[in-house]
Amino acid sequence: PATGPWQESSVYRSGINLNEIYVLLTMINNCIISVCYNVIVSVFIFQGAKKPFNEVIRANIGDAQAMGQKPITFFRQVMALCSYPELLEDDKFPDDAKQRARRILKACGGSSIGAYSASQGIECIRQDVSRYIEKRDGFASNPDNIYLSTGASDAIVTILKLLVAGEGSNRTGVLISIPQYPLYSATLADLGAVQVNYYLNEDSCWSLDIPELKRAVTEARQHCNPRVLCIINPGNPTGQVQSKECIKNVIRFAKEERLFLMADEVYQDNVYRDNEFHSFKKVLFEMGSEFSSTVELASFHSTSKCYMGECGFRGGYVEVINLDPGVKAQLTKLVSVRLCAPVPGQALLDLVVNPPQPDEPSHATFMKERTTVLANLAEKAKLTEEIFNTVPGIKCNPVQGAMYTFPQIKLPQKAINKAKEAGQEPDMYYCMRLLEEEGICLVPGSGFGQRKGTFHFRMTILPPTEKLKIVLKKISDFHVRFTKEFSE
Amino acid sequence: PATGPWQESSVYRSGINLNEIYVLLTMINNCIISVCYNVIVSVFIFQGAKKPFNEVIRANIGDAQAMGQKPITFFRQVMALCSYPELLEDDKFPDDAKQRARRILKACGGSSIGAYSASQGIECIRQDVSRYIEKRDGFASNPDNIYLSTGASDAIVTILKLLVAGEGSNRTGVLISIPQYPLYSATLADLGAVQVNYYLNEDSCWSLDIPELKRAVTEARQHCNPRVLCIINPGNPTGQVQSKECIKNVIRFAKEERLFLMADEVYQDNVYRDNEFHSFKKVLFEMGSEFSSTVELASFHSTSKCYMGECGFRGGYVEVINLDPGVKAQLTKLVSVRLCAPVPGQALLDLVVNPPQPDEPSHATFMKERTTVLANLAEKAKLTEEIFNTVPGIKCNPVQGAMYTFPQIKLPQKAINKAKEAGQEPDMYYCMRLLEEEGICLVPGSGFGQRKGTFHFRMTILPPTEKLKIVLKKISDFHVRFTKEFSE
Repeated sequence: PATGPWQESSVYRSGINLNEIYVLLTMINNCIISVCYNVIVSVFIFQGAKKPFNEVIRANIGDAQAMGQKPITFFRQVMALCSYPELLEDDKFPDDAKQRARRILKACGGSSIGAYSASQGIECIRQDVSRYIEKRDGFASNPDNIYLSTGASDAIVTILKLLVAGEGSNRTGVLISIPQYPLYSATLADLGAVQVNYYLNEDSCWSLDIPELKRAVTEARQHCNPRVLCIINPGNPTGQVQSKECIKNVIRFAKEERLFLMADEVYQDNVYRDNEFHSFKKVLFEMGSEFSSTVELASFHSTSKCYMGECGFRGGYVEVINLDPGVKAQLTKLVSVRLCAPVPGQALLDLVVNPPQPDEPSHATFMKERTTVLANLAEKAKLTEEIFNTVPGIKCNPVQGAMYTFPQIKLPQKAINKAKEAGQEPDMYYCMRLLEEEGICLVPGSGFGQRKGTFHFRMTILPPTEKLKIVLKKISDFHVRFTKEFSE
Repeated sequence: PATGPWQESSVYRSGINLNEIYVLLTMINNCIISVCYNVIVSVFIFQGAKKPFNEVIRANIGDAQAMGQKPITFFRQVMALCSYPELLEDDKFPDDAKQRARRILKACGGSSIGAYSASQGIECIRQDVSRYIEKRDGFASNPDNIYLSTGASDAIVTILKLLVAGEGSNRTGVLISIPQYPLYSATLADLGAVQVNYYLNEDSCWSLDIPELKRAVTEARQHCNPRVLCIINPGNPTGQVQSKECIKNVIRFAKEERLFLMADEVYQDNVYRDNEFHSFKKVLFEMGSEFSSTVELASFHSTSKCYMGECGFRGGYVEVINLDPGVKAQLTKLVSVRLCAPVPGQALLDLVVNPPQPDEPSHATFMKERTTVLANLAEKAKLTEEIFNTVPGIKCNPVQGAMYTFPQIKLPQKAINKAKEAGQEPDMYYCMRLLEEEGICLVPGSGFGQRKGTFHFRMTILPPTEKLKIVLKKISDFHVRFTKEFSE
């Protein structure tokens, strides 16, 4: 119809890159993949051409429970109790689960998770978040600085919205890593902020090097006003874990350049082998008051990753440090417009930050479940690196953390030409061929950004071990076959 | 700290009206009220001045369960089963609850509500929403046109975002009723859209008159590009229910003026006495293809109101009609950035649109609970109108629907002067005095907008009947006392 105001809307013209959206869709929901799969099924039905696989394996989405990971029993017991408090009389539920549920319900309006909470989140849950941070970091945390959110994404969008301003060459520039998680580029495009790329150093395990940050900021100052620096640690899609020394250098750099730090730390429990997670908050406070009282920081966490993988509940929080009180009032305003984060997600977050303690009846089971998931992921991280690095033309950094590997793939020039003829990015062509031939769904590196002339894919390490082994074998064989096909 | 990019951010300078925010806060969460209450308690403690009330009664928030309304048993049983599927083996749960839970879980990735859903929402739930709309309206509904959301607010913000464009005198104007629900004005301020006010006709029960719409559009064309018309029906804060004739006229007007219609219909079950709810979709399709194939419409619904009042779950949906396929693709992009609406909220919405049927074991209890809540609200609506209209200086329209009354209060000139001296809106001064003296929390009309020189407050009809009677009596007595005080 001709009446649509949308033709002129900023979203319609936002320049959100379709490729990024492909990545978002493939990673996050089933749309594109369903489409691909339906096309494949259609081809099978209408042309009678049997596909050489029985199922599509989705190694594209960081969605643990969709890949068969079981929820933590204690968490779900408490959620059931909160949903239907009649169960508080049921002997089947352990006392600590009941105690948690009673405490959460008491903090809700009308003792029900069906009531709105305060926009910033339920107060006793914000207190629990603060205690969790204090225990993790060894430094004080103020519940007033905690905002509960609808997953970390919601909080990241909100904070970016608060920070983006100015016009023309004074427009806010936001530094994001390349490769990056497309939430950032999509949000920046939507807000009309200037995306400033800094490249992670693939040769030293995707490290974050200060000279590269300096280059990015200096170049950006020519055409915008760089004011925000985003870091994802442990890394998505690159799976690296930043060292404490690196984080110190980043903080020093942020202070010098007067940058607001956004630390996306949703994979903080997903750290494997000898690596250790250091929160930006902790390192900032270890550096003394010269830093801890001046550098502005927002740190994000979520219920969606780590050992729990509760993506569907959309729980999350942001802790803000050194935010001006006037700005905090604006932040509160901003979150008030959408009323409150979902209360079931808030309740689940409360369990994540306040899990069963050693003297409680659910502790043993909880620890067993948690440890099993994390040990499993560590094993699969190792396996992935080892198998990929045996394949000529695949180069894979150690998966130090998170749930992803982002190996570089060498593509023959003829394959690159073929893709370009088809108007596709070469690694997109590669991933589509892999999907067609093996039923394995990965995300092409071009959706995350990569150095020109290099090609990658992102694969999750979430499939169960036995299935992951098959996936790794199939990708390896495919790579050899693909390379051979285009090298003749 | 001096490093903050926020000083220049659009949010910081958005001009979101503090008064609106006061309304948002008092309506939605407990911030401001807690502050007031704490001040009162502090005064009591430090000055030894006992307040003349024992509790603060919050008649300011449309939050039914916070006011003691019990959740629908069936809904919460299914939520418990979805949260902790081990309960599917438990004899305590009726078969229809188990069947619903199994069906929802089957539609989830990994059969878990902990997995992400597609960004547009779980497909079988969108199908159920379509069937609900078809049954309600008698016209076809396409699940592809349904987007599940984090409460209705989220969908309203998203659609507004999609529609706002242009610069200067070409900037999109959005028509909203006065009085209005502050979500609209706050979002428009945030998006930099032009708020175009049309006044509801208080003298004929807050009716929506076409000449007034015409006046608003015509005047707006001088300085912006009015392209969107928002209607809240049943009305918030005004509690009216629009007639079918009125809706027809609005649709004709929208077609003539090429306006995109946004119909906020979250109170669709909250209709009392002889009034009947007519959805914009149904009326649009009754008007024939000249209208039904051209007028663009977005209609919103939520789990937060009606008989269920499940605000905390943040469930909701929008149905879009006559949206260009290219725009729908943009809408899908936009919702993808935040991944998906909370899955527990989606599940609860599924129960709202597909409640127990007459041949199912939970039907009788469900109907009894639903009928009791709605009959209760109808009784309280009547009571409110009757009692307020006995008070000289309070004029109250019939509460035909929703959960609010918005009576006009006559304030003596001396009270108006006194408020202005204190830098307050007169009805804000009135409400603060009421809070101080009687412990009753209302929202001043100035937060919603009202014709110049008139004063109102919004009160919910949610307190339990016996408590509501006390509230009505106390407000009535206060009004007489207040009027007398300033008339001497």
